[in-house]
Amino acid sequence: MKLIKGNLIYSPRLGELVTLERGALLLDDRGVILDVLAAPPESCDAEVIDCGAALVMPSFVDMHLHAPQYPMLGMGMDLPLIEWLNTYTFHTEARFADTDYARRVYRALARELITGGTTRVCMFSSLHTDATLILMEELERAGVTGCVGKVNMDRNGGEDLRETTEESKRETLRWLDRCGSFRYVRPILTPRFTPCCTDELMAWLGRLAEERGLRVQSHLSENENEIAWVRELHPDCPQYWETYAKYGLWKDHTVMAHCVYSNAREREALLRSNVVVAHCADSNVNICSGVAPVRTMLREGVWVTLGSDIAGGAELAMNRVITMSIRASKIRCMQSDGKENFLTVDEGYYLGSTAGHRWFGADGGFVRGVPLHAIVVDDGALAEPVRTLTLRERFERCIYLMDKSAIKAVWSEGRKVVG
Amino acid sequence: MKLIKGNLIYSPRLGELVTLERGALLLDDRGVILDVLAAPPESCDAEVIDCGAALVMPSFVDMHLHAPQYPMLGMGMDLPLIEWLNTYTFHTEARFADTDYARRVYRALARELITGGTTRVCMFSSLHTDATLILMEELERAGVTGCVGKVNMDRNGGEDLRETTEESKRETLRWLDRCGSFRYVRPILTPRFTPCCTDELMAWLGRLAEERGLRVQSHLSENENEIAWVRELHPDCPQYWETYAKYGLWKDHTVMAHCVYSNAREREALLRSNVVVAHCADSNVNICSGVAPVRTMLREGVWVTLGSDIAGGAELAMNRVITMSIRASKIRCMQSDGKENFLTVDEGYYLGSTAGHRWFGADGGFVRGVPLHAIVVDDGALAEPVRTLTLRERFERCIYLMDKSAIKAVWSEGRKVVG
Repeated sequence: MKLIKGNLIYSPRLGELVTLERGALLLDDRGVILDVLAAPPESCDAEVIDCGAALVMPSFVDMHLHAPQYPMLGMGMDLPLIEWLNTYTFHTEARFADTDYARRVYRALARELITGGTTRVCMFSSLHTDATLILMEELERAGVTGCVGKVNMDRNGGEDLRETTEESKRETLRWLDRCGSFRYVRPILTPRFTPCCTDELMAWLGRLAEERGLRVQSHLSENENEIAWVRELHPDCPQYWETYAKYGLWKDHTVMAHCVYSNAREREALLRSNVVVAHCADSNVNICSGVAPVRTMLREGVWVTLGSDIAGGAELAMNRVITMSIRASKIRCMQSDGKENFLTVDEGYYLGSTAGHRWFGADGGFVRGVPLHAIVVDDGALAEPVRTLTLRERFERCIYLMDKSAIKAVWSEGRKVVG
Repeated sequence: MKLIKGNLIYSPRLGELVTLERGALLLDDRGVILDVLAAPPESCDAEVIDCGAALVMPSFVDMHLHAPQYPMLGMGMDLPLIEWLNTYTFHTEARFADTDYARRVYRALARELITGGTTRVCMFSSLHTDATLILMEELERAGVTGCVGKVNMDRNGGEDLRETTEESKRETLRWLDRCGSFRYVRPILTPRFTPCCTDELMAWLGRLAEERGLRVQSHLSENENEIAWVRELHPDCPQYWETYAKYGLWKDHTVMAHCVYSNAREREALLRSNVVVAHCADSNVNICSGVAPVRTMLREGVWVTLGSDIAGGAELAMNRVITMSIRASKIRCMQSDGKENFLTVDEGYYLGSTAGHRWFGADGGFVRGVPLHAIVVDDGALAEPVRTLTLRERFERCIYLMDKSAIKAVWSEGRKVVG
């Protein structure tokens, strides 16, 4: 057993924050939480790991990002969407036909994710099977867990980034066959988005998801031109989400990135089918898509998580993704003359941590029976505060200000993988 | 003489970016630029400083920040303005009666500014004369240059942060008497904002500015409640700016922070008097003030600069202030259905660098005859790019992604102060 002593902070439910000053986590030998203690026991048989004055918090979960866009982070931000896709995105993704390049980039990405405290991801790869397998290897090696999808796209992908329907099917099966060797990273079916997949491919993916019990991720209602395009492609579907529903891809735990323009009917479909929104505020602002109605979704009971969406998003660090989501929500708050409350720091952290962990089966922050996913944060290098701060205040300061140098240790799936 | 070799990047005018691959700057012994060279001379008598593949760019200028709010950076961001002021701001500023505390905090602040590449500031201190002098000392010691103001506030300051009108005058004179010892940091008159200054004090400050040729900084039209309050206090003034104009404080080079709600008439007054806007986008979003009409101001010819406005702003690093300003402008762009163009990266950098240097008498980026203010940026630690990047692309990536660890050297007023 292990006993981790430190200042515990977690968000069990939206808007709630638990702070346990000088508390402790008792873990079994596999790193599963046996107990969450308001005070460490006087004596116990466990190996003691004393984090001193540091904050011990559940790690971050990035529910939407494009791994092969990592090399173009922070570039082309002035371009309109289509030009940005053609100048940067498709060419960049096409480079991942080169497995040596993929190895170097994905090793660096995995390292940046884990040292930044992101221990779970739901991630897009490119259409390349081999590079996708390399990505999964590198995530495992670094200690990042979660789901990765080989992208399916048999139309509208640009000159150097396309696969035929047959290739897409064959490569998907080849990829799935080789995913069994991973322990902490699992496959997820990933039709890029409706305009990039033929009906035949969508239908095939829907059947595959059903047969093999696989989860699905894609994009939904990111911008208005895209929605109009989808309507042209599927005149039989009144709304975008129905192009996924038609083929069995709209189901429990399906992850849909963006949902900026999801209206009441689409939001009701999200809620009814337990489809999860990956809200990507930084990306949505950077490429001028809009700001999703997160407060409304939360009020209605829709399951909202956060995604960095690199490289539409320019921030990989999830604490920055959280504060960008808060800022975007303040814009909506102002637009509504204060009627639509902004996200508080506690709520933002819930969305960027607990709500994502829940997708992987671990709800409620630090709770018994789940493997530990946590970061240990030392805020000692931040500016001298004006007085002794409460744990809540230290937490807020870290969410706004910390960079990865403040993250002294990271636990992922019960294992200490950093520090 | 010194010859600095490197990849030169600067913005001479709004929207223009000059990139000189493997260029050079020739400096005299005082660090004044003698020449800007597209290629280094084959041989010359100067001491050669070779920056290799690094980017050499004009440094950043922070035209509005509150030094005594540095200890509350990233805190209280969920509170409404008045509660935020009463819970954090006023208590925090009041602590600067303690000169030991001031010394420690201001030393850390000056260090963070200069290592982040901010070499010029236009800054608010608190009302405390001694702490203000300590702030000026610490800026000089670190290599930060610019203007600092002891704050004047003889009403509405809260219980532990007030001065009488007489104290305010006496302490201002005592402070000014002792400013002669500084070489790189100068005083600027700083009525906090209209609601915090009696008419008597405002009139006295206006006369003092005139007699001693001092510049002035304050706040203008940050939020709608404030504007209504000012109207109650000065029923004779149709607009907020006129409460400054009435007392001789609205004049050439006066700096006004925010201007979120400055309408056409107020903007015309800004333009006519050559009053400078310090646009503080991060702060304006964080405390739900609004988003200033920067594109309109620029089109009209108003002089716009950028301010971090810590601690309403939660970002001290000016490259992040620039990208926050860009994001805020994208929100306005979307609100206007694309009619109001967003700020490009080149434009954002111009506002956060050249437009501020101009206020200090050095317009146009790297130009002959002015002391060097520059940063040397090594982007080698960023993710491996997809191909060889242009200088313009490397510049954009640095503005979006760099933290101070990428800033390898800083030149301020012709002196190398970091690296």
